[in-house]
Amino acid sequence: MSKGERTHTAILDRATGLASQLGLTGLTIGALADDLRLSKSGLFAHFQSKEALQIAVLDHAAQRFAETVVRPALLEPRGVPRMQALFDRWVAWERDEALPGGCIFVAATAELDDRPGPARDRLVALQRDWINVLATSVRKGIESGHFRPDADAAQFAQDMYGVMLALHFHSRLMGDAGAEARARRAFAALLEGAMP
Amino acid sequence: MSKGERTHTAILDRATGLASQLGLTGLTIGALADDLRLSKSGLFAHFQSKEALQIAVLDHAAQRFAETVVRPALLEPRGVPRMQALFDRWVAWERDEALPGGCIFVAATAELDDRPGPARDRLVALQRDWINVLATSVRKGIESGHFRPDADAAQFAQDMYGVMLALHFHSRLMGDAGAEARARRAFAALLEGAMP
Repeated sequence: MSKGERTHTAILDRATGLASQLGLTGLTIGALADDLRLSKSGLFAHFQSKEALQIAVLDHAAQRFAETVVRPALLEPRGVPRMQALFDRWVAWERDEALPGGCIFVAATAELDDRPGPARDRLVALQRDWINVLATSVRKGIESGHFRPDADAAQFAQDMYGVMLALHFHSRLMGDAGAEARARRAFAALLEGAMP
Repeated sequence: MSKGERTHTAILDRATGLASQLGLTGLTIGALADDLRLSKSGLFAHFQSKEALQIAVLDHAAQRFAETVVRPALLEPRGVPRMQALFDRWVAWERDEALPGGCIFVAATAELDDRPGPARDRLVALQRDWINVLATSVRKGIESGHFRPDADAAQFAQDMYGVMLALHFHSRLMGDAGAEARARRAFAALLEGAMP
């Protein structure tokens, strides 16, 4: 990476962490400039608008998610090991100290679901990719005989998403120390229900 | 109700609907005044600060939730009928046209989980009440023999919350028309797992 690219990446790392706490709408170019001790005009050279910054943060977070969650998990054998790796790495992502406010996509969902526009469109596209990874991984497990032929991939993906959202809610808002153990039990029950 | 109380309630109804779309942080006294065609100073007489308005909206929504979800459901017989009524009424609440942006507590959770203060404290207290209603209803079902003696009330409550959050996400953000049917199947599986 060139020095310019490294700077751009460092800015996006910090912007993503801030957005996990402040939300995407709270992440103004002014707030980011204050945090990084950069000039607003310098940041405007990187991101021409608040919306461009929001989209850049979503893409940056999605790239990190692909590198740390999706790609390593897809190297695991089909069926239970792959689904378990997707789940474990998703939990680790939610707990990552680079995201002090937890999963940025959860925060962005609540903010953007009623705000039509390019940032919402990008979020939907990224989330669709992720749901497809989950559902496709279930389907491959069915094809290879690791899951029941009548397992429902879309149902599994939605249920798995619910386990993760409940974990986020019970730990982040409610400070419930038992939430992660419960989420792991819920996911184990989901897996068990899909097995032959 | 006196005329003053009716006005106050009408303002809070509108504020709650707006907050379901704009979020609690987006619900400024200025935005509400514009929407209601009232003066800002008139609204300040009702709510002395943005934070007081946020707390009033949370309390107002919780009161409506108690009236339309909790109390009628608790009139149902223990066990499956009561849990099913809690679920069905919760789904109807999320779909209520008075909340065009969906459940206001879901929106508020994503906004407030990283913002310590009185509004977050109130949200946590209200959510704790609701989780307690769910867990207590499971426990009463166990005591009366409608659910298995080893059913886990806290686990059931967290899993049920996850089903609802996944429904909110898949329908509100992703526009997935199959989300509600999947949520109903997921809840039916939860109930079945708790039955003797």
